[in-house]
Parts: sequence; C-alpha cells; structure tokens
Amino acid sequence: MLRVARVPKHPGSRHRPVVIPVAGTALLLIDVINDLAFEGSQTLIREAEPMAARLAALKRRATAAGVPVIYINDNFGQWRSDFRRTVAHCTALSSPGHRVSRRLRPTARDYFVLKPKHSGFYDTTLDTLLGDLRIRRVVLTGIAGNICVLFTANDAYMRELRIFAPSDCIVSNTAQDNESALRQIELVLKGNIAASGRLTFGSRRSRR
Amino acid sequence: MLRVARVPKHPGSRHRPVVIPVAGTALLLIDVINDLAFEGSQTLIREAEPMAARLAALKRRATAAGVPVIYINDNFGQWRSDFRRTVAHCTALSSPGHRVSRRLRPTARDYFVLKPKHSGFYDTTLDTLLGDLRIRRVVLTGIAGNICVLFTANDAYMRELRIFAPSDCIVSNTAQDNESALRQIELVLKGNIAASGRLTFGSRRSRR
Amino acid sequence: MLRVARVPKHPGSRHRPVVIPVAGTALLLIDVINDLAFEGSQTLIREAEPMAARLAALKRRATAAGVPVIYINDNFGQWRSDFRRTVAHCTALSSPGHRVSRRLRPTARDYFVLKPKHSGFYDTTLDTLLGDLRIRRVVLTGIAGNICVLFTANDAYMRELRIFAPSDCIVSNTAQDNESALRQIELVLKGNIAASGRLTFGSRRSRR
Amino acid sequence: MLRVARVPKHPGSRHRPVVIPVAGTALLLIDVINDLAFEGSQTLIREAEPMAARLAALKRRATAAGVPVIYINDNFGQWRSDFRRTVAHCTALSSPGHRVSRRLRPTARDYFVLKPKHSGFYDTTLDTLLGDLRIRRVVLTGIAGNICVLFTANDAYMRELRIFAPSDCIVSNTAQDNESALRQIELVLKGNIAASGRLTFGSRRSRR
Repeated sequence: MLRVARVPKHPGSRHRPVVIPVAGTALLLIDVINDLAFEGSQTLIREAEPMAARLAALKRRATAAGVPVIYINDNFGQWRSDFRRTVAHCTALSSPGHRVSRRLRPTARDYFVLKPKHSGFYDTTLDTLLGDLRIRRVVLTGIAGNICVLFTANDAYMRELRIFAPSDCIVSNTAQDNESALRQIELVLKGNIAASGRLTFGSRRSRR
Repeated sequence: MLRVARVPKHPGSRHRPVVIPVAGTALLLIDVINDLAFEGSQTLIREAEPMAARLAALKRRATAAGVPVIYINDNFGQWRSDFRRTVAHCTALSSPGHRVSRRLRPTARDYFVLKPKHSGFYDTTLDTLLGDLRIRRVVLTGIAGNICVLFTANDAYMRELRIFAPSDCIVSNTAQDNESALRQIELVLKGNIAASGRLTFGSRRSRR
Repeated sequence: MLRVARVPKHPGSRHRPVVIPVAGTALLLIDVINDLAFEGSQTLIREAEPMAARLAALKRRATAAGVPVIYINDNFGQWRSDFRRTVAHCTALSSPGHRVSRRLRPTARDYFVLKPKHSGFYDTTLDTLLGDLRIRRVVLTGIAGNICVLFTANDAYMRELRIFAPSDCIVSNTAQDNESALRQIELVLKGNIAASGRLTFGSRRSRR
Repeated sequence: MLRVARVPKHPGSRHRPVVIPVAGTALLLIDVINDLAFEGSQTLIREAEPMAARLAALKRRATAAGVPVIYINDNFGQWRSDFRRTVAHCTALSSPGHRVSRRLRPTARDYFVLKPKHSGFYDTTLDTLLGDLRIRRVVLTGIAGNICVLFTANDAYMRELRIFAPSDCIVSNTAQDNESALRQIELVLKGNIAASGRLTFGSRRSRR
C-alpha cells in the first residue's frame, strides 16, 4: 500500500514552465515506431498523428540540449528482425502508422531498446542502459498511454526514477483511457504531466 | 502497444457462477496485514472492514478446496522484522487496521512473500514460489486496488498468468480509483472481475 | 547450499552418443561474433578458430534438425548499434576475430539477443524468447568458457533448464580456466559436457 | 567476453592490511544457518566449524564499525516457514550444522534475505535492500564457496559492486572447489580475497 496525496503539491502552477535538468534526464519514446495495423485503430491514428508532430518537436529540443533519446519498441513478435527492419516495415506506405512512424523516425544518435512485453523494463536492457547513462529522470511519451506507457511508468516509479509524462505526447485508444492513465501517473506515481510546450531542458542554474 | 478488446467477451454472463479450476490456481492477498496508519485512512478503513469479511469467506473456500493462499505484504520499511512481527504490529489494538488484519490473520498453512515495493513481483520470491506451485491463474485481492493490486496485476499479466480480481475483495482510497483499476484489469489485462460470491473453486469436470 | 554429486551418474558412458530431443532444445552461441581485439588475445584466437569450425558443424546439424539457434552477443558498449553493425565490425579483416566471426556468421533464420553484461539472462530478452519457444534444454557454446558461458550457465541452471555444454565448442583464455569452467558446469550445474561429435539432435523415439 | 588480467594488480601486497570503508559496505553471510544434513557433509562440517569462529569474529568487527550484516539464506524449500523457524531448526542439537549455526546465530540488528535459488540476487529482495542501504561494496562469506557464494558473487559483479571474499570465511565441499571458486572471484570478478585477519573496517581518512 502506498499513500497518495490528494492535493496537488503546487496549486496554481499549471501554466508555469517546467525546467528539467539535462544531466540525468532521458527522453523515452514508447512504441511510436508502429504499424498501428489493428482493427479499430483509426481513432488512435487520428490522435497519434498530431501527437507525433508535438513529440518530434520535443525530441528536437531534447537532442539540441544533449538529453539522450531512447526508443523503446515492440518487435511485433518478430524475434529474428532488428530495429532497422521494424522501422522499414512501419514507415512503409502500406502501414497505417506510416505517418506517425516517419515523423518520429530514429536517427543514428538515438538509442533503442527492444521490449518483448508491455513494460519497457521487463526482460530488456533498459535498466542497464539507464544505469550507464546515469539517468534519474525519464520523460515518458508514446503509445498507448494506458498500456505500454503506464506499465513502463509503474516500473520506472518502483526504480525511483522521477517521471515526466507530457500529457499531449501520449495517446490511448480512447480519451477516457488516456485521462485515467495520466491521472494514475500524476496521483500514484507522483509524475509531472505538464504538456510538452511547458517543458524546457536545462539546469535552473544556467538559465538567465 | 497492445490491442484492447472493447466488447466484453461473454455479454450477459454477469450473473453466472465462475468456476476456477483448483489445480494451477492461487489466491493472493495483497497488503491486507496493514496498520492503515496514514492520514486520511478513515475512508479506506470503512471500505476495507466489510471487504475483509468477504475476503475471509473467499479464503475459507479456497483453503477448503486446496487452493494455496499467498500473503504478499509490505514490510513497512522494517527490513529486520519478519512477517510474524508485522502481523503482531498490525493486529494490535493501537493499529487503525487491526480489525482488517485480525479478520485476515494468516495461518500456518498460508504462504507469505515479503515485497519491498508496490508490485508483488518486484524483487521478491513470488516468481519462484508460483513456479514451484505450478500456478497459471491468480486470484488477486487486497489493498489498494489502484496501487499494489494493480502493479501486481500488470506484472502477472506480462507473465501470462490468467487474472481474477473479485471486485468486492479489492479496495482503494476512493471509489473512482477502485473503479478505474478494475476497468484497467478487465479491459487491458483481460482479467475476470466477477464479485467473490460468484467464484467457485473446483474443476468443471468434477462438478455434477 | 546445494548438494553436489561426486560420482558421475553414468560411468563408462564417456563415448556413447548423446541424443538431444529436438522439441524444447535451443543452441546458444555466446559472444562468437567478436573482434577479439584485446591484449593477449592470440592464445584465445588460436583455440577459437578450430573451435569455430566444430561449432559451425554443430550449428548446421541443429538447423537441419529444426533446433532454433540463438546468438547471444555483447554490444561492445555500442548501445546505438544493432547486431548487423556488430557483425560487420567483427567480420572485417581489421578484426583479429574475423575468421571466427565469419565462420559463425548468423543467417536470417537465427535469433539474436543483445546482452549488456556477462550473463545472457541479465537484463535481456532471453527469458521471454526461451519461454516463447518453449525451451527446456540449452546447448551452450562460445567464448569465454569461464566468463560469459559460465555466467549464462549458472543462470540457466537457476531457471531449471537442462544444460549441454559441448567441451570442444567452448574456449577460455587458458586451458586451466576452460577445464575448471567445464568441471563446474558438470558437477555443480549437472550439465552434460560431451564433445560436439557425440551430440545428435532427434527424439529417441523416432530413431531407428 | 570479458578481459581478464593475468597479473595480480598489487604484487607483494599479500600481507598488508586491507582497509574497507564503512560507508557503502555490507557483510553478507550466505547459507551459514544450515542444518548441513546431507550425505557426505562431514568433510564440509570439519571445515565449516573453524570457519564459523573466524567469521563470527569478522562479524563482531563489522557490527562494531557500523557495517550492516545481511544473512542470505536458503529456506530449504519450506516456503511457509520464516527465518526464525529456520534458525531454530538449524541450531537444534539434531542438526549436524548446529555448531556452525549457533556460532553465527543472527541478532535483532541483522538483516536477512530469503533466497529460493543459489544466487542471493535471484528473485529476492537483496537488490532493493542494498539500494536502500546505499551499498557499493560487499564482503561475501559462507557456504558453499563454489556454489551459492560464487553465484552471488557473479551477480554482485554484474551489478558493479566491489567484491571482498575473505578466503578463510568461505568453505566448499572440497579444497579444490574452494580454490577454484576463489581463483574465479579474484581473476574474473576482480575481487579481493585477502583472509579475514587482514580486513579492517574504517575509512582510510579517519585512521591514524
């Protein structure tokens, strides 16, 4: 059992910028390289496409600031394929998720972690990679908010990582699912869910 | 990303008994041995006391049927104490949770697993114990629904265990939190959330 | 503490063929895609080259029989690179390990698992992959016998996998290290260390 | 693959005292609470009894210096029993290991971790406990050197903990097994295997 504070710690702070120190922070993109080829994915795709534009902007700012970017991605049961092949498959025109995947196509500077299950930490190299990079804070983004993002957030919380989950860079199958995931991240996991426009990378000290 | 079925698999089945085979099933009691000594715990206690009565009845039926009962419990940061001492502390009259803890006091037949974090699987012996007992199905109960029960449920799901989460044997700090946890267990984790009164332990075969 | 049988279970059986059932078996190649670019690697390379020929033959027989082949490989601290790039690096003429790596170059049918540390099970997808393939028996081969092979063997043993460690498909920095690793695998981990020439893939039943 | 230095880093240092800083260090006692009730245990018991006297002295010095002491112990398959009951069983006169277990009987200040398998890290709370105590260095002692001590040492090494394995506080079934485990700890895991008499707890700074 864990106690949950019912009162937001900083009332009235909903519009202030949130400064995230560069050192110790990583940006995690969860299942954004995705063919989104499942029945009923249209609603999700409609949300995911504008989200991808916002997330691409956030990623550019992270990269410019020196914050490492880590793709955590399903292998779609294709144990023999590598991430390159997954990218090719998901960005092909035949993939319903091609616009999302293209917008967020990884570069040679980005890290990637293959995940076999829902949580980015379950049976993956993520723990070791975060340790090597000395990460204490994660910015969690991606698809779907109430599934892989939430599972990953729970596991990050148990590892005592500070969580940022920009509410406009996470999408779920329904708006209700997304809200209830964000609520869970904020109340239980004590995460910051400020929208991406409010996030700035940079140490407080160095800002003038 | 995981696909989520939006339509309940068995519509109209909300009142039928649910038969859970004895072999391969375990009943898990999460954080029920609990002093509930935190600010604002009154609401939770008010819900937890009648829940404890229902859960005690479910436990009696499980034990009678030969289903192993596993207590998964916080050590309240007391790394040096054993479960016996935790039970003594939580059942003492000075503990706000004493009525809940007494009602569900473990017996010498029950198993117990100490958990240091929220999920019953995180850095615990639970995986090994379930393996030894050849468990493929877990009945998840306890406190709080949207925290330790949900974290444990997520981890059970990634391990491909079938989940039962009797809705009247799980309590959270608020009704909304409890409902949203049960919804998550049902829709995402494909769990069965039938109330405890509907659950019967016994193989279909042996029933006449 | 674990009890260790001091007496070989099947005395006099040192030359008989060992039949390994196909179903439930995987062949694991540990760190064979390797640039072997470290000081003092000459001795190891001298042993590894003929070993690679024997292991390539064993791999051909495994593949022909339908036994899945899994490469478990270091990423040499190159978190951004994929396995394809590692293969290219290790098979280049400039790599002291190029002959070993070429001889054992993976094909599109082979599986691969990236490992960040010594054991193939530590923070990797191996557990999930073996579960998906329903593996209960592993044939462990590769480099170095007393380090990554032994660490992986220990972890396989704790997971109750049956271990085969063909003595002529494992090399270490010194002969003494190799022997003591094989002794440990045989006595403590109850592994079978028959040389690769004695191993046959195929169910006993179907053999005439 | 891991490179192994063949040359001892500090030749001629075999007799100098080894000062281990107090902060960040824990003393681990592995399977010393043990009934040693297995066929052929006489040899091991003969070694374990004087070892227990030396280890008890080391434990006294650790406790005096403020170094936490952690018992990591088998539950002998008794999932329902707690550590108290295991201590009672192993210290009873009927237990062949009673002299060892009595000499090393835990006090109320000591921590304990139940382990279901050979490594102290496998499916246990040890990772979390060491994290809470901010441990970066472990002094590994106990039974048997080439099994549970070595498995635990391997796992400690992958977690980047510095290893001390006092050679006279570790016993195995045979002298050869013990030596080969210590050799592995020294060469592969870069552990310090100085005998317990040479170990002093205390920061270099504060020593005059």
